[in-house]
Amino acid sequence: MTTVLPPASQPVTTDHPVTTDQPVDPAALVARRRPGYALEGPFYTSREFFDLDIDAIFAKHWIFVATEPEIPEPGDFITVELGRYSVILIRDDDGGVQALHNVCRHRGSRVLLDAKGSVGNLVCSYHQWTYAADGRLLHAGDQPPTFDKGCFGLKKVAARTLGGLIFICLSPAPPPDFDDVAERVAPYLAPHRLAETKVAAQVDLVEEGNWKLVMENNRECYHCEAGHPELTCTFFPTYGYALEEIPPRLMPAHARYLAAEAHLERACTERGMPFAPIEELQGRSTAFRVQREALDGAGESYTRDGRAASRKLLADFDTPRLGRLSLHFQPNSWFHFLADHVVTFTALPLAPDRTLVRTTWHVHRDAVEGVDYDPDILTDVWRMTNEQDGAFVGRTQAGVSSPAFEPGPYSTNEYQVDALVSWYIERLEEHLAP
Amino acid sequence: MTTVLPPASQPVTTDHPVTTDQPVDPAALVARRRPGYALEGPFYTSREFFDLDIDAIFAKHWIFVATEPEIPEPGDFITVELGRYSVILIRDDDGGVQALHNVCRHRGSRVLLDAKGSVGNLVCSYHQWTYAADGRLLHAGDQPPTFDKGCFGLKKVAARTLGGLIFICLSPAPPPDFDDVAERVAPYLAPHRLAETKVAAQVDLVEEGNWKLVMENNRECYHCEAGHPELTCTFFPTYGYALEEIPPRLMPAHARYLAAEAHLERACTERGMPFAPIEELQGRSTAFRVQREALDGAGESYTRDGRAASRKLLADFDTPRLGRLSLHFQPNSWFHFLADHVVTFTALPLAPDRTLVRTTWHVHRDAVEGVDYDPDILTDVWRMTNEQDGAFVGRTQAGVSSPAFEPGPYSTNEYQVDALVSWYIERLEEHLAP
Amino acid sequence: MTTVLPPASQPVTTDHPVTTDQPVDPAALVARRRPGYALEGPFYTSREFFDLDIDAIFAKHWIFVATEPEIPEPGDFITVELGRYSVILIRDDDGGVQALHNVCRHRGSRVLLDAKGSVGNLVCSYHQWTYAADGRLLHAGDQPPTFDKGCFGLKKVAARTLGGLIFICLSPAPPPDFDDVAERVAPYLAPHRLAETKVAAQVDLVEEGNWKLVMENNRECYHCEAGHPELTCTFFPTYGYALEEIPPRLMPAHARYLAAEAHLERACTERGMPFAPIEELQGRSTAFRVQREALDGAGESYTRDGRAASRKLLADFDTPRLGRLSLHFQPNSWFHFLADHVVTFTALPLAPDRTLVRTTWHVHRDAVEGVDYDPDILTDVWRMTNEQDGAFVGRTQAGVSSPAFEPGPYSTNEYQVDALVSWYIERLEEHLAP
Repeated sequence: MTTVLPPASQPVTTDHPVTTDQPVDPAALVARRRPGYALEGPFYTSREFFDLDIDAIFAKHWIFVATEPEIPEPGDFITVELGRYSVILIRDDDGGVQALHNVCRHRGSRVLLDAKGSVGNLVCSYHQWTYAADGRLLHAGDQPPTFDKGCFGLKKVAARTLGGLIFICLSPAPPPDFDDVAERVAPYLAPHRLAETKVAAQVDLVEEGNWKLVMENNRECYHCEAGHPELTCTFFPTYGYALEEIPPRLMPAHARYLAAEAHLERACTERGMPFAPIEELQGRSTAFRVQREALDGAGESYTRDGRAASRKLLADFDTPRLGRLSLHFQPNSWFHFLADHVVTFTALPLAPDRTLVRTTWHVHRDAVEGVDYDPDILTDVWRMTNEQDGAFVGRTQAGVSSPAFEPGPYSTNEYQVDALVSWYIERLEEHLAP
Repeated sequence: MTTVLPPASQPVTTDHPVTTDQPVDPAALVARRRPGYALEGPFYTSREFFDLDIDAIFAKHWIFVATEPEIPEPGDFITVELGRYSVILIRDDDGGVQALHNVCRHRGSRVLLDAKGSVGNLVCSYHQWTYAADGRLLHAGDQPPTFDKGCFGLKKVAARTLGGLIFICLSPAPPPDFDDVAERVAPYLAPHRLAETKVAAQVDLVEEGNWKLVMENNRECYHCEAGHPELTCTFFPTYGYALEEIPPRLMPAHARYLAAEAHLERACTERGMPFAPIEELQGRSTAFRVQREALDGAGESYTRDGRAASRKLLADFDTPRLGRLSLHFQPNSWFHFLADHVVTFTALPLAPDRTLVRTTWHVHRDAVEGVDYDPDILTDVWRMTNEQDGAFVGRTQAGVSSPAFEPGPYSTNEYQVDALVSWYIERLEEHLAP
Repeated sequence: MTTVLPPASQPVTTDHPVTTDQPVDPAALVARRRPGYALEGPFYTSREFFDLDIDAIFAKHWIFVATEPEIPEPGDFITVELGRYSVILIRDDDGGVQALHNVCRHRGSRVLLDAKGSVGNLVCSYHQWTYAADGRLLHAGDQPPTFDKGCFGLKKVAARTLGGLIFICLSPAPPPDFDDVAERVAPYLAPHRLAETKVAAQVDLVEEGNWKLVMENNRECYHCEAGHPELTCTFFPTYGYALEEIPPRLMPAHARYLAAEAHLERACTERGMPFAPIEELQGRSTAFRVQREALDGAGESYTRDGRAASRKLLADFDTPRLGRLSLHFQPNSWFHFLADHVVTFTALPLAPDRTLVRTTWHVHRDAVEGVDYDPDILTDVWRMTNEQDGAFVGRTQAGVSSPAFEPGPYSTNEYQVDALVSWYIERLEEHLAP
């Protein structure tokens, strides 16, 4: 047979449309959502839902976008793209974190062009309008005497920090329940002192699927056993299973899990570290889950053997064997705080069928690359896992775009997916209410 | 003159939009179609007509998508993309052809990822839901006792074979007139025994034009004389001309045609092979045309000299000089059955302005590449011809996207184009009827 | 820190959407335009305004597209893409310029495929329909006796020349005020005899922004001092400033400007060349501005030292020191006529967020490349300047796409931007009027 045949391991064509341009009625689709089942295709494939998700979800809620160690010094900044918004996060002279719309108040040019850097003032490259780090307009050339600089500062975005994590809210009326969440979560994060770490690595992965598919994939481990060989070296594949539903083949893993949990609880209790789960995944704006859990293998970190990836432990930990403090927020972020490093994840929508997943690894500020840690080993498990998840997400985006797709039932293991989707539907109902 | 000038042989820019986003009223455009004239621009350039074409044409009619030799053994499969649908064609254990929607019944992932291959069961890579070749769900992990596997088989697509050709229909109510067509066409195809061939080559060509422009181009030879030097070595350029309209310069070719036709009729009659045309191109759902016709040159096959491209003749033919059994179906397929090989064509819409043309060459199952046939020679004429046609289609897509385009009249030679367009308009009228 | 971090000098992602698919109400946005302020975001980012701009602006007004030296001899042609239109400009046998829609009257194929070239007749490659340079259909094969060739000539586009510049109007009712403009502008252009030049270089630059951002950028020099180091070698950065608003740092440049202006006025007066400004930038269809102005440095041409770039002066000029005859037209063109060369610019919309800027340099017909002029030196200043402007435009497109963008006030220096925008709003109001 001649070589003009397409290779057997390749899909026929990447031209298959995975979004739809057909008109969609979001309110009707929201109203007929069937609990316990996946969402219908247009939630993932239509421009209407993409725009609605930006307006009702990403522009109205607290969104994790970066960590304090990403902008350690005054003048350090990053720019974050969220839908059609561009936001500057900059450390001001008082050590505070400012969030500003990255849009010049003159004719709208982007003010800062780079993804990250360090500046004195913020000078728009177009006509040199010059702003302070808190957004105040300091200088604009060739203006009439009536021009009031006080009216043309960069617009502010609400920003909050929590244990070194930076959240922003694009709405002028951010959800007030963040205070309550911060108070309850902070004790879990505090021992790791994230603000005293440094960024060791950051990877941006563009997954070929809707942001909800990215997050749904993140909220269950029903696919872990077969799909994530590196992760399940240390992440117990029984995650999410009710005891009576653990398949027999996973009972040995479950036995190790019970032993590791007992050890972890002792270690936490001795050190006064909270570990019990708090799970408020729906029914509130700032929904979250936090828990300290054991790891398999050596039980220290996310590596193939479970040993710490950085010899310089965080804060003043006296042992690496403290499991994983796992935290996640609706709609788009999740976190693992280990004894030796912290890894953060945020999923930012780019298009109905494309999502940026940014993963950032933090180690002790004094850890030395090549001496205390090897970035390849540090990032190995989650780089592999993210890429595997990206493939799952792309296949699901392709599948749900078929008019023949009919949402199927979640397994019991997928209860957190159902919670995420239920939270999302609650938010849309609230947004769409007359 | 300096080199910054764009090269003279290149269009200024490929940025010219060849689709429109302006709102289009399909029903009004269908209603005012002028018979004997080309369609108006939005039929080819708008998203509205693209979606309508998928719904009213491709999802409602019998569509040729593959041949039986593409999936010879049990477990062999191909996946076919049709608009936003993905369909699995798989040979089952009983030797039958099954067509299934390639969408997992759990959360919608694609089940089979490759364009072709061979499997035992169909296992979704995401959560290992496992299906039989007939679509039955065999296994789904971690389900509650109420879960009924019988409700979650892969959805079936109607499939029919005709002389080794595989047709599918995405509608739950396929046009019933396929039976009638099959009965009348089968005797023409039977002598070639396509099911006993093997695929020698397959080429996917993405043409930069609407699927209707691809098919309209296929349904006339008004452009052949100037446009297809390789094809007209053996394809008489008088195809489609009424006797009184054959230009004088083509009369020598016409004389050769008459002699070749007489020879062909004798050969067919002696062997009991039907050859007379049946032409039912409109007024019915499954519209078609079939005829055995003579070839120019040696008269044996589509090669530059007209000699057979495979020394191992199909079936038990005793002579290569049996002309071409030409068959085509509305809306999107055409076929040439020769004594030495069979070549099939299907045009699958990808976007308003992009169409996949898949061409597949089949030779006797026992023909040996390099001994009995040379794939380059076998595929030469139609590879060249398809590429030439692709250029015509691209230029026409660009042209009809101009708001200045006004449909012109078909020449008498283009009566089959008019028939195709008339069939298409009939189908849309039926679909749009209240 | 490991290398997986994105490089600091790169934006995080080019995936940020800089157009919007959300529905836009152009009439409402036009009605609430605030004079003296930039336009709101959807004017630049929406498909609705892009389509409206093509219909109301580019298809209704006289648009500069090329120069006579681009098609010097009978049969020479160029093809121009304007929105979804394609237009042929061809020199006919009588030396006239013909403009024709590049769409075959049969089934709509593009007739001429190249960006430029030379032909005898215009032969469509598809079915060989053959047209004369004035559009008449000369031949169409295989037609019935009722076919009237007189009905199927290529459709004409209105075309006018002015001092060697070619303008077209796609409307059947072009603005009649072109005559008046031509009469008043011609004396300014005449001395340069553009029609007797040749094209020395042409550069097509695709800027990543809406055509209005391209033109707004062109209509002010508020950004020149910081943004265009090469241009401000000779282009006084005080352009657009009222005397009382010239910043102190620019007063030395202003003093040089006054001296150069006095010299230029004397030189023009001695040679009977008009130089006084005419500025009619709004309140009429064919709005324009023309003025002969001094250049800085040697004062001869747009080079880094201000010396002529071509030793062979245009026409029979006796001195290179004649400043710049600057001309611009609403909506999309600008021109500089120097003593040694002429440079023309046209901005052609490709998409809401993409615009083709074509720049063409002309020198004396007898100037010899490498002897009289070096194309790199000739094109240097404006190639650099265009690229710098393209960057400004791209950043502004990105910025105005943010939902947080609020139009800011123009400085006094930007009065021509305000005039352009006001002209544009007038045109839309007229177009949208019931």
